[in-house]
Amino acid sequence: MYKIDLNSDIGESFGAYSMGDDEAVMDAVTSANVACGFHAGDPLVMKKTIKNCAVKGVAVGAHPGYTDLVGFGRRNMNCTPEEEYADCLYQIGALSAFCRANGLVLQHVKPHGAMYNQAAKDPGLARAIARAVKDSGEYIILMGLANSEFEKAAKEMGVPFAAEAFADRGYMPDGSLVPRSQPGAIIHDVEEAAKRVVRMVTEGTVGAVDGTVINFRPQSVCMHGDTPEAVEMAKSVRKALEAAGVKVTNLKEVVLG
Amino acid sequence: MYKIDLNSDIGESFGAYSMGDDEAVMDAVTSANVACGFHAGDPLVMKKTIKNCAVKGVAVGAHPGYTDLVGFGRRNMNCTPEEEYADCLYQIGALSAFCRANGLVLQHVKPHGAMYNQAAKDPGLARAIARAVKDSGEYIILMGLANSEFEKAAKEMGVPFAAEAFADRGYMPDGSLVPRSQPGAIIHDVEEAAKRVVRMVTEGTVGAVDGTVINFRPQSVCMHGDTPEAVEMAKSVRKALEAAGVKVTNLKEVVLG
Amino acid sequence: MYKIDLNSDIGESFGAYSMGDDEAVMDAVTSANVACGFHAGDPLVMKKTIKNCAVKGVAVGAHPGYTDLVGFGRRNMNCTPEEEYADCLYQIGALSAFCRANGLVLQHVKPHGAMYNQAAKDPGLARAIARAVKDSGEYIILMGLANSEFEKAAKEMGVPFAAEAFADRGYMPDGSLVPRSQPGAIIHDVEEAAKRVVRMVTEGTVGAVDGTVINFRPQSVCMHGDTPEAVEMAKSVRKALEAAGVKVTNLKEVVLG
Amino acid sequence: MYKIDLNSDIGESFGAYSMGDDEAVMDAVTSANVACGFHAGDPLVMKKTIKNCAVKGVAVGAHPGYTDLVGFGRRNMNCTPEEEYADCLYQIGALSAFCRANGLVLQHVKPHGAMYNQAAKDPGLARAIARAVKDSGEYIILMGLANSEFEKAAKEMGVPFAAEAFADRGYMPDGSLVPRSQPGAIIHDVEEAAKRVVRMVTEGTVGAVDGTVINFRPQSVCMHGDTPEAVEMAKSVRKALEAAGVKVTNLKEVVLG
Repeated sequence: MYKIDLNSDIGESFGAYSMGDDEAVMDAVTSANVACGFHAGDPLVMKKTIKNCAVKGVAVGAHPGYTDLVGFGRRNMNCTPEEEYADCLYQIGALSAFCRANGLVLQHVKPHGAMYNQAAKDPGLARAIARAVKDSGEYIILMGLANSEFEKAAKEMGVPFAAEAFADRGYMPDGSLVPRSQPGAIIHDVEEAAKRVVRMVTEGTVGAVDGTVINFRPQSVCMHGDTPEAVEMAKSVRKALEAAGVKVTNLKEVVLG
Repeated sequence: MYKIDLNSDIGESFGAYSMGDDEAVMDAVTSANVACGFHAGDPLVMKKTIKNCAVKGVAVGAHPGYTDLVGFGRRNMNCTPEEEYADCLYQIGALSAFCRANGLVLQHVKPHGAMYNQAAKDPGLARAIARAVKDSGEYIILMGLANSEFEKAAKEMGVPFAAEAFADRGYMPDGSLVPRSQPGAIIHDVEEAAKRVVRMVTEGTVGAVDGTVINFRPQSVCMHGDTPEAVEMAKSVRKALEAAGVKVTNLKEVVLG
Repeated sequence: MYKIDLNSDIGESFGAYSMGDDEAVMDAVTSANVACGFHAGDPLVMKKTIKNCAVKGVAVGAHPGYTDLVGFGRRNMNCTPEEEYADCLYQIGALSAFCRANGLVLQHVKPHGAMYNQAAKDPGLARAIARAVKDSGEYIILMGLANSEFEKAAKEMGVPFAAEAFADRGYMPDGSLVPRSQPGAIIHDVEEAAKRVVRMVTEGTVGAVDGTVINFRPQSVCMHGDTPEAVEMAKSVRKALEAAGVKVTNLKEVVLG
Repeated sequence: MYKIDLNSDIGESFGAYSMGDDEAVMDAVTSANVACGFHAGDPLVMKKTIKNCAVKGVAVGAHPGYTDLVGFGRRNMNCTPEEEYADCLYQIGALSAFCRANGLVLQHVKPHGAMYNQAAKDPGLARAIARAVKDSGEYIILMGLANSEFEKAAKEMGVPFAAEAFADRGYMPDGSLVPRSQPGAIIHDVEEAAKRVVRMVTEGTVGAVDGTVINFRPQSVCMHGDTPEAVEMAKSVRKALEAAGVKVTNLKEVVLG
């Protein structure tokens, strides 16, 4: 039986500022990437978010980002691998404490925004992040772009890796994402997105933007949660997967058994 | 055989800013209170500090503070107990990750500055901190002012507690510290300070500012580390203790066995 | 002809975080208290906000707050008058630069949240703020609670002062606000609130919570803008004032001419 | 008579953290680049620094940097020109308020660290900074690398520009600095550095690292102030300039008058 995890970013509120409909998103996904206080989130938000994850049975991942709250961690920064390691270890440790306080164990780590994008292409940064994951505890999964430096670094460090797919993004023939500036970057049609995900999971292929067929079998699918439409897409994808006989379950079950 | 722990604050540098002579302090004490990034310290500083503690065999404590870097955590703030709990749990978790990465286990938690002073008198805040300690792991010791709300809260929560004394501070007849604005607040004479500490540890008493004798047997003595004089005092106190046959060792051994 | 200013807090968004319906609020008020980046707001938000004020003809005031973004400047903090002065001068200067770039002149300064509440009762803090206003330029008005330390400090410093009333708050017989924990603290009825404001402006009196009549003639009325209901109240109050023949205009015209 | 300005970065302390010997530096230079609270400095430090500048007669420049305190503004960041403009305008405005409070007028703006390096090569960023300078007031000078995008942007915007030289850095034949990774990047010899500066100012030339002679007549020379050696170099350079009959004076006099 095919298994797949659905992940989404949550816990991105900060102080008096609210962001996203976390309740609705948590009902749609099986794993949550929880902001850790650097690019979003704060200790009180983390406390509430992890408690909600515990109540709703959503597996928790750390979502570390750059020290760039005003830029929401989306601006590229020139960090050294040593800084990246320390920043990730710090954030993972902080989030893990809230997991522990709620009887949970941290499932995975997925870097956020610019940290994700830069490390996916930079072996030194990817290794720094993989090392932080390894040093944070056993059996913690590093989630990242398929065929990226994340995958290599995880293998090198002996850290479990999960490749994620994007339900609403087009793919290039080499498996990378179509840049947002090009046609075919975004799949707006919910039905189409759902079909693509089902195919990735059950057949292990996806149609690239030029029509070629790529081999790609993800362990998790990223669902955006910041708009009502995104929540709708998450629900539709989940429904389509279940209708196709796929078990939608958390990443630990998909990756580790 | 009498045992006592000597503690000091370290790891208070931040980015390009350096503070204190951590190397010298670590050679003088047995337990370190390490800043966790809110009032001082940053992930890279924490990484280096914890590694140094591992190398030098100094036991590690978390030194959480208020979210007030520019005020160095010394300004009183009106936090709710829920905020205090979350801020402490976050910082303890972050520091614990660096301990784990260096094969260490967090020994204790000692709040910093205004957080320390406010919680020592406020049952709600003290309980919030004690709960954060409890939720952070087993056998973590809460270090605080003797006879304060910290001690009550630790007992209530079933968290091990360690009372700390101040080598260079005068005491009131009720066991509280002489306010800095009053005569007798600071003991400048190194010999005098060393003698007082030896007496606290071996006889369980200290002479108050008015001449009365107070019963007081601390588990740890706080040594300041921010001036060369302070490091000298730490060395003198340690020497005097050892000359008196007292075993100077880390807090875990003093408190838990 | 009676004149009154209506003020509201705007520009409280931060980075990716949005707060309040500034467009709607700006259509209802004559003066805006614009967040300056410490408790809310960021340089880009300030740029857009001041431009909007210029376009809509709303007079601009600085709304300095504590260095407490996660607490939205609402938590009391123990700042020294010297810190308060420097924090205010910094924020007023920053906002003034955006005014200048848009051909505007800063009209007033109204401290935010805990800074407002603490200084209203503390002569040292109030004087520090009044001095910052004075040092920021000529003819800048300090807006604050009537009969508070703000008023005394402004007089002492020779800074123009504007007393503000709260449309939706009940008053004690001594002119202070009914604490939020007590009955009569909040006026929920829009008609009632509008009537009270008209009476304050035209008769110079307001009915206190115990039925006594207080003499009180404000120069500005604070309208909240963070809920759709608040925007509705602002519109109703404005309409009632205009129906009563009161000129609703910006603070400079009310206070200085 | 030849004139030259000597500039140095000051006011880089933050809260409890002290950096640099500002007193000594201020005695050696004629213009100060004062940190504005983003990469270094805080309102209280700015207050004290500007007061010192007023007392010592050192001309004040704003030294805006990236929102990266932990990285001291030295890490490259991907800011948009719009963000750069707003960040600069904000910081210049804040510093200008302290100038005004001390009876001073802001003389110049020199971006810090990574902001300086990135904008020197990026027309969009350089224009954003030049526009912020223009919008901050009349006759404010933009100081930057000679022949860089700063110079072009300043010309385009009608903002006065000052080219700065580095006393302790080697030059490439094209007038750019020898990268720190290459031999000849740093001039360690104080006499040599002093001679080079005198030659730049009086002859308008400097010897490049490969022996060729470049035409280069700076309006200001940057002196580092973070080490005792640096302060010594500043004094030596000043002495050599004065011995050569050059008038060492502030930038405004060199550029505008």
